[in-house]
Amino acid sequence: MLTDRTRVRRHADRGSHDRATIHAILDEAYVCHVGFVAEGSPVVIPTAFVRVDDAIYLHGAVANHMLRSLAGGACCVTVTLLDALVLAKSAFHHSMNYRSVVVFGRGRVVDTHDQKRAVLDALVDRLAPQRSLHTRGPDDSELRATLVIEVPITEASAKIRSGPPVDSAEDLVLPHWSGLIPIVTSLGAPIPAP
Amino acid sequence: MLTDRTRVRRHADRGSHDRATIHAILDEAYVCHVGFVAEGSPVVIPTAFVRVDDAIYLHGAVANHMLRSLAGGACCVTVTLLDALVLAKSAFHHSMNYRSVVVFGRGRVVDTHDQKRAVLDALVDRLAPQRSLHTRGPDDSELRATLVIEVPITEASAKIRSGPPVDSAEDLVLPHWSGLIPIVTSLGAPIPAP
Repeated sequence: MLTDRTRVRRHADRGSHDRATIHAILDEAYVCHVGFVAEGSPVVIPTAFVRVDDAIYLHGAVANHMLRSLAGGACCVTVTLLDALVLAKSAFHHSMNYRSVVVFGRGRVVDTHDQKRAVLDALVDRLAPQRSLHTRGPDDSELRATLVIEVPITEASAKIRSGPPVDSAEDLVLPHWSGLIPIVTSLGAPIPAP
Repeated sequence: MLTDRTRVRRHADRGSHDRATIHAILDEAYVCHVGFVAEGSPVVIPTAFVRVDDAIYLHGAVANHMLRSLAGGACCVTVTLLDALVLAKSAFHHSMNYRSVVVFGRGRVVDTHDQKRAVLDALVDRLAPQRSLHTRGPDDSELRATLVIEVPITEASAKIRSGPPVDSAEDLVLPHWSGLIPIVTSLGAPIPAP
């Protein structure tokens, strides 16, 4: 999966092309940011996604501008998990702990109802365990109204920063507090629909 | 701020061009996703940012590939806050509650040390209140090593989904649970550096 584009240039020590690492980051996130080029300009749109095997799946209405651009077009799908704010003794070494994945690829339209149904099941199962068994599944008209795009995870990299702040030796004597402030993402108590 | 690019096409009722709404979303997020075009292909990279007045500021090493592309180049800066998973009685109406902002613009290099210093102060103040007063500020060599890019918020839109799931009338009789599962992002107890 290492190509010139996926070589991590800044802080190369933070980069990885390990498939299990990439999959674990993708599987923890609810949203990805999809980049594509529209009339020569870059566009970045957040959207739900699910990974199944070695592909990312996006979906939306058949008229969706982004998804139509992605059908056969180049895209970049990026996923970021934030773990902590990193406060150093010097402003210069402030940072964040994060885990991110960048996937370069081309979208392909998923065109059989069977595969579409499998992807849409996986999408709702991502929101709650076995949710697809406890909801009304898509009917034929809903499947026809939904465009599903597959982006293969063939050209991808992960980048991870973890651990405490790293200050220069001469700053370690400064009196300022330094350390991590964890960012915790959790699910709250369910709120039933009215 | 309404242009053809920032007109919200899908679910236009969820769109806004109100400056206070856009600023509030930007000010709650720690990370943005920056899209640019490199050798004809879209690239999306997560990075820290801060809003000051009507601009977004990004920073990094002078050799940073993305920032160098942004100096004078077109970019799209997108910020997303996730608020809830939306579980409907039908798979088709599953969704997420979110608040997002998309800014189209061109980067400009911030070239005075005074303005760079002000932006870097604002960046660390974003991580903890008044942090810039309680850390060693950047010295001249650190300022020279840091590239700061300004992206004006002139062409921008917000998009927001809130509230409960919306099912079709005929699905409301189904026995499946429906409602919201809140996504809560909070800061944990600080962990001092070793």
